Amino acid sequence: MDYYPAPGRNHLFVPGPTNVPEPVLRAMNRSNEDHRSPAFPKLSKSVIEDVKQLFGTTKATSFIIPTTGTGAWESALTNVLSPGDNIISFLFGQFSLLWIDQMNRLNFNVDVIESEWGAGADLATLSKKLSADYSHSVKAVCIVHNETSTGVTNNLAAVRRVLDESRHPALLLVDGVSSIGALDFHMDEWKVDVALTGSQKALSLPTGLGIVCASPKALEAAKTAKSIRVFFNWADYLKFYKLGSIWPYTPSIQMLYGLRASLDLILKEEGLHNVTARHHRLAEATRKAVQAWGLKICTQKPEWHSDTVTAVVVPPHIDSGNVVKIAWKKYNLNLGVGLNKVAGKVFRIGHMGNLNELQLLGALAGVELSLRDVGYPVTLGSGVAAAQAHLQRATPLIASRI
Amino acid sequence: MDYYPAPGRNHLFVPGPTNVPEPVLRAMNRSNEDHRSPAFPKLSKSVIEDVKQLFGTTKATSFIIPTTGTGAWESALTNVLSPGDNIISFLFGQFSLLWIDQMNRLNFNVDVIESEWGAGADLATLSKKLSADYSHSVKAVCIVHNETSTGVTNNLAAVRRVLDESRHPALLLVDGVSSIGALDFHMDEWKVDVALTGSQKALSLPTGLGIVCASPKALEAAKTAKSIRVFFNWADYLKFYKLGSIWPYTPSIQMLYGLRASLDLILKEEGLHNVTARHHRLAEATRKAVQAWGLKICTQKPEWHSDTVTAVVVPPHIDSGNVVKIAWKKYNLNLGVGLNKVAGKVFRIGHMGNLNELQLLGALAGVELSLRDVGYPVTLGSGVAAAQAHLQRATPLIASRI
Amino acid sequence: MDYYPAPGRNHLFVPGPTNVPEPVLRAMNRSNEDHRSPAFPKLSKSVIEDVKQLFGTTKATSFIIPTTGTGAWESALTNVLSPGDNIISFLFGQFSLLWIDQMNRLNFNVDVIESEWGAGADLATLSKKLSADYSHSVKAVCIVHNETSTGVTNNLAAVRRVLDESRHPALLLVDGVSSIGALDFHMDEWKVDVALTGSQKALSLPTGLGIVCASPKALEAAKTAKSIRVFFNWADYLKFYKLGSIWPYTPSIQMLYGLRASLDLILKEEGLHNVTARHHRLAEATRKAVQAWGLKICTQKPEWHSDTVTAVVVPPHIDSGNVVKIAWKKYNLNLGVGLNKVAGKVFRIGHMGNLNELQLLGALAGVELSLRDVGYPVTLGSGVAAAQAHLQRATPLIASRI
Amino acid sequence: MDYYPAPGRNHLFVPGPTNVPEPVLRAMNRSNEDHRSPAFPKLSKSVIEDVKQLFGTTKATSFIIPTTGTGAWESALTNVLSPGDNIISFLFGQFSLLWIDQMNRLNFNVDVIESEWGAGADLATLSKKLSADYSHSVKAVCIVHNETSTGVTNNLAAVRRVLDESRHPALLLVDGVSSIGALDFHMDEWKVDVALTGSQKALSLPTGLGIVCASPKALEAAKTAKSIRVFFNWADYLKFYKLGSIWPYTPSIQMLYGLRASLDLILKEEGLHNVTARHHRLAEATRKAVQAWGLKICTQKPEWHSDTVTAVVVPPHIDSGNVVKIAWKKYNLNLGVGLNKVAGKVFRIGHMGNLNELQLLGALAGVELSLRDVGYPVTLGSGVAAAQAHLQRATPLIASRI
Repeated sequence: MDYYPAPGRNHLFVPGPTNVPEPVLRAMNRSNEDHRSPAFPKLSKSVIEDVKQLFGTTKATSFIIPTTGTGAWESALTNVLSPGDNIISFLFGQFSLLWIDQMNRLNFNVDVIESEWGAGADLATLSKKLSADYSHSVKAVCIVHNETSTGVTNNLAAVRRVLDESRHPALLLVDGVSSIGALDFHMDEWKVDVALTGSQKALSLPTGLGIVCASPKALEAAKTAKSIRVFFNWADYLKFYKLGSIWPYTPSIQMLYGLRASLDLILKEEGLHNVTARHHRLAEATRKAVQAWGLKICTQKPEWHSDTVTAVVVPPHIDSGNVVKIAWKKYNLNLGVGLNKVAGKVFRIGHMGNLNELQLLGALAGVELSLRDVGYPVTLGSGVAAAQAHLQRATPLIASRI
Repeated sequence: MDYYPAPGRNHLFVPGPTNVPEPVLRAMNRSNEDHRSPAFPKLSKSVIEDVKQLFGTTKATSFIIPTTGTGAWESALTNVLSPGDNIISFLFGQFSLLWIDQMNRLNFNVDVIESEWGAGADLATLSKKLSADYSHSVKAVCIVHNETSTGVTNNLAAVRRVLDESRHPALLLVDGVSSIGALDFHMDEWKVDVALTGSQKALSLPTGLGIVCASPKALEAAKTAKSIRVFFNWADYLKFYKLGSIWPYTPSIQMLYGLRASLDLILKEEGLHNVTARHHRLAEATRKAVQAWGLKICTQKPEWHSDTVTAVVVPPHIDSGNVVKIAWKKYNLNLGVGLNKVAGKVFRIGHMGNLNELQLLGALAGVELSLRDVGYPVTLGSGVAAAQAHLQRATPLIASRI
Repeated sequence: MDYYPAPGRNHLFVPGPTNVPEPVLRAMNRSNEDHRSPAFPKLSKSVIEDVKQLFGTTKATSFIIPTTGTGAWESALTNVLSPGDNIISFLFGQFSLLWIDQMNRLNFNVDVIESEWGAGADLATLSKKLSADYSHSVKAVCIVHNETSTGVTNNLAAVRRVLDESRHPALLLVDGVSSIGALDFHMDEWKVDVALTGSQKALSLPTGLGIVCASPKALEAAKTAKSIRVFFNWADYLKFYKLGSIWPYTPSIQMLYGLRASLDLILKEEGLHNVTARHHRLAEATRKAVQAWGLKICTQKPEWHSDTVTAVVVPPHIDSGNVVKIAWKKYNLNLGVGLNKVAGKVFRIGHMGNLNELQLLGALAGVELSLRDVGYPVTLGSGVAAAQAHLQRATPLIASRI
Repeated sequence: MDYYPAPGRNHLFVPGPTNVPEPVLRAMNRSNEDHRSPAFPKLSKSVIEDVKQLFGTTKATSFIIPTTGTGAWESALTNVLSPGDNIISFLFGQFSLLWIDQMNRLNFNVDVIESEWGAGADLATLSKKLSADYSHSVKAVCIVHNETSTGVTNNLAAVRRVLDESRHPALLLVDGVSSIGALDFHMDEWKVDVALTGSQKALSLPTGLGIVCASPKALEAAKTAKSIRVFFNWADYLKFYKLGSIWPYTPSIQMLYGLRASLDLILKEEGLHNVTARHHRLAEATRKAVQAWGLKICTQKPEWHSDTVTAVVVPPHIDSGNVVKIAWKKYNLNLGVGLNKVAGKVFRIGHMGNLNELQLLGALAGVELSLRDVGYPVTLGSGVAAAQAHLQRATPLIASRI
């Protein structure tokens, strides 16, 4: 049963949830089983281990929590911080805003470094603040790697450099919800202490898993952190890891088999390096299309270009919400609306997860149609052609078919 | 497990098998059940009845046979004809050729009216032959409604007119494999005696059901037809219809639930009239794209334009097989190759079944890329733009979302 | 891919997760969709509304949270209580123990009323404590309706009577994880303030939804409760309910469609009254089997008999863990082990969710075999016969097949 | 959507179609793909090759035809015989009767050797007839290996001995529909010329594949056989085998992936030898149950015992149809009715395909209940106990779980 059925496939180009590929649907098409049987830990251990590759870590400990990205945020914060702790956080879009809101509600003392929506994190200010913090009162620096509302990716290597140059021991906490598994992520190299993502983004799974990796330093901090936590407490996981039964409470059997299938697609079939290259290729194609349409993207500088989501700024006389509406009503295309400060001003094209060139070109064609339907005089085919030109050059033969 | 995996969705644009929509996959996702239980006939009767709407008939009797189109052909011929019977059949492509081959092998005496590949049935010759057949020795006229190899649709109303004008009592047998459920089909109005299709075409199901409708006149002929037949014998079905248990041998439970879901999508959710309109819209868009590419289609006259498949003629120096190959290897796009006389000369774009505008535009973009990859200097975006222009005008809002 | 494959179906008789029926698997067999599209709230509202029927409430507000039962517990406590609040909680098994552990860790001041494992809540002591609490310092009474570790169901109407007789305004918080949707539950009638369950129990879904209902009094309490909460905060849900977009963060599309299918099975196809009657029938049959085996159940008095799980006490010389082990290794039967105080002493037969008579009889036959395999001289067929005798009398014709 | 829904799993114990296991459902849960792409032959070749193991042949050629068992029969007969050919066929039940009916309708000259229903093939008479056939006018001997209507398995080694002792060159054609993949089958050793089965039996797949193996001698005979055939013509397959594209017409993609999964379960996970041992174990248990009920089975001598289906004879005052009816209406248990000569006199328990001990015991418990419901005073638990006693001894630990 579908509520507003339409012929053909849905074109899902919101920046998450993303398309679930058939191998994942197949893997999840199963009844429940006993998660306390001798069989289940075998699967559990394999995903707990392999998921770390997406984070670029061999040193961290992973936690796969039956929750969403919001829960993963809460897990990251409450396990390493105590109420009243000073933290620095960057604000440059809706999801950084929501995380900061959570930080405040969890009673941390947040020093917000704000940038314009469309800009990335202001690292100069971070540098100043950290250098001035002689007493090392700042316990953590929190940053959203890829801001989904504006299509801005921050340079985490640069963040690490600032921390290192200031010789500041603050923990580095990273929201990688719309980046990990799609963009290069090097947790060990960048000395990230807590990184997290959700299953419904680059992993192309249903919503329901919050995946958190904690560095040895973060695990150490967790021993003394005083934030109240039970459901999100890593200690319970660590206890059951030792026992070998892995789960402190009932996990979703189906989601874990799905995760196994998703990891196989990413790590074995395509290869993580090819996955990130594909994301870059599709993102570049999208940006070229936007340019061909005579429009700007929300991202203010190329250094912040996001390879998972592109926020397109519409001309002032057009309401971006109408673009999204007509795309859904006429072309079965789901785009992301503009949120908060950019509501009505941008619409967003998600190009994340299990996706390929022709799916994107179909969606770009749909954006062109929708733009014209709402009165913006885009030349039909112009963006598609620009994207095609890039993709023709940049797309390799499919590895298994050479 | 997939044999040559690739990221993202497969773009399946062969003229069958077609994309299976999620509601059909869901309906088929079930174990076996007892087809002799009191429950099963309820489903069976509903599909036997409703499938007739696709054929445009209330008078005919339908048979849903666990076979393919080839088997449905054999069922049509052997139930109404006797060995040695004179029949007239049209030859204008690979599938009409294969059917004629079957006729010959089944020992009918076939008078073949040949046209060029790309042309439709030569009705003038039919008229002559029938008019000259004073003794009514011709027992049947056989025609492929839509020739899948060349993208040619014949005018069945015109065929009927020829029969009527010749006052000839021959049975009219129609292969509607790539037409019924996608193109207008009026079995009762056109006085078609046997019409047939397969599940993997307009119905967007897996292969496995041959669906045959027989007019009262055909059923009458079946009583005396001497062709040997057991598996394909309608009489066995009619016997079990009377008994109420419907099936002379074990049917595929899953396929029948899938058929129910497919009929619901076509007849209830979208509406058959909207389905054929959608096929026309997508086909027109495809033809406009081909024109924009500076290429011809195989179909020689607009009156024969097919709304389910477009056969594109490539320039002499290009092997159409290479277009198909690179599309699959680089873009995960499946196109149909040229068959037999047009091998190497045409490739085919299927636009049949559960499909929408942006899926087609993605595929057309992929064709452009593939054409350039093999050295044909198509302007990227040109065909997409031409198709978009048509679709923007012709596409209505999705009925459920207005 | 399965990790320890075995021919035939798995016999899943742990007290959760339970068997997922085919209609639910079908409903969940779908890709992601945009939860912010106009379509999704239609589904969301229907399940938010209908789920209340399982709780026996029209007055409460429901929250469907992407979490487990443990998270639902945390949601219940933190939304209505403040750190340091005095609460009374009953301890009589592993799950009441774990909930109390959570209460302590969330910094509530828990007054524990302990009973033996196998007994129900000690209501006499509750009565004394409440009567003595002139200042109404006790803010909440917390009780596990059905203790899954011992097979004990408490009489919630009696709990309410104690509260009423003491004229005590404490909130009544109920863990209905292994009861709601399987046992009679009358939230409004019993004036329960917060009740909760998880998707993987009576609803026969995968794990992943914590379902919480809050009375108007609970919602009122939530306005002033000072426990820190973000992910589990009802206020965020209420805000999005008002906005009509329902979800403060991304829900699991698949789980919500699955919940819709499960509610349809329970409320429409079978009828809630028939569902609880079926649970009682299967539980009675199980208890009669245990008696025939010459064994005792953990539950000390018939008034506490659980209709969702039966904990069977093995003779002292037998390790119940071995029964569970051989059942899995030889018969593909999953039983629940004894937990904590009853580890090694009991094994548990879950008979909850979408289950029927012959599934249970097969499992009981398997228990007999396993008991003999570990050396307990049960008469083969004895328990099955006792269960059959009850079921033959008590089982009605299947409603749809009369 | 189900037509007569009931809680819990359906207990499918008809002798086909059989239960489809989850790994097969998962493998089949996929959209269509292009069967003419370079990828598909890889799958096709693997199943065409591996299916031969079920037949016990390395010398034969296999054909996987989109049809049912009835179609597979027709394929076997028409490819090696010419109209008017003399053949000997055995009649001892409904399916041997139906095959003979087909032989007659296909215009072969059938010499029927009849036995009572419940007996096996009369080999003494065969011996006489063959010995008397000095001119070798008999072209083929046709036998149903396992007669599904009476639960009779014939000794094919003995049939071969008769042929060899008579030094008769007749082809040996075997219907293995309810045997191959479940019972020992040694096509090469027994010099069977054509053997066939259907997907919905031992393979535990949906209906839709007729699987036929032909010996080199059968392939030789096919070159001159004059029976008219097109859809069922092996020559078309052989032609496409040579071309490497395997399929003369569109195959069912889903069924072939399902077949791959089923073969993996049988050949790799469980092992064919263990599969046949399991069938024997379950059948023995069933026969012991019947004996304990004080009833007879239809099979007249132990040498003919069938390990895939047991036909139970009810006392004269009972209509076996009522047993089947109440089993379905009250216990969601599907049994096979008595067919033709044994209608009303026997009901049948299928124990074929992907099935285990506790599933069978649940069904046997259901049979007991149903027998009592219709007035036969069976002692509840008696048959279950007898079956359990056998199974406890005979069931090994599950290989993957030792």
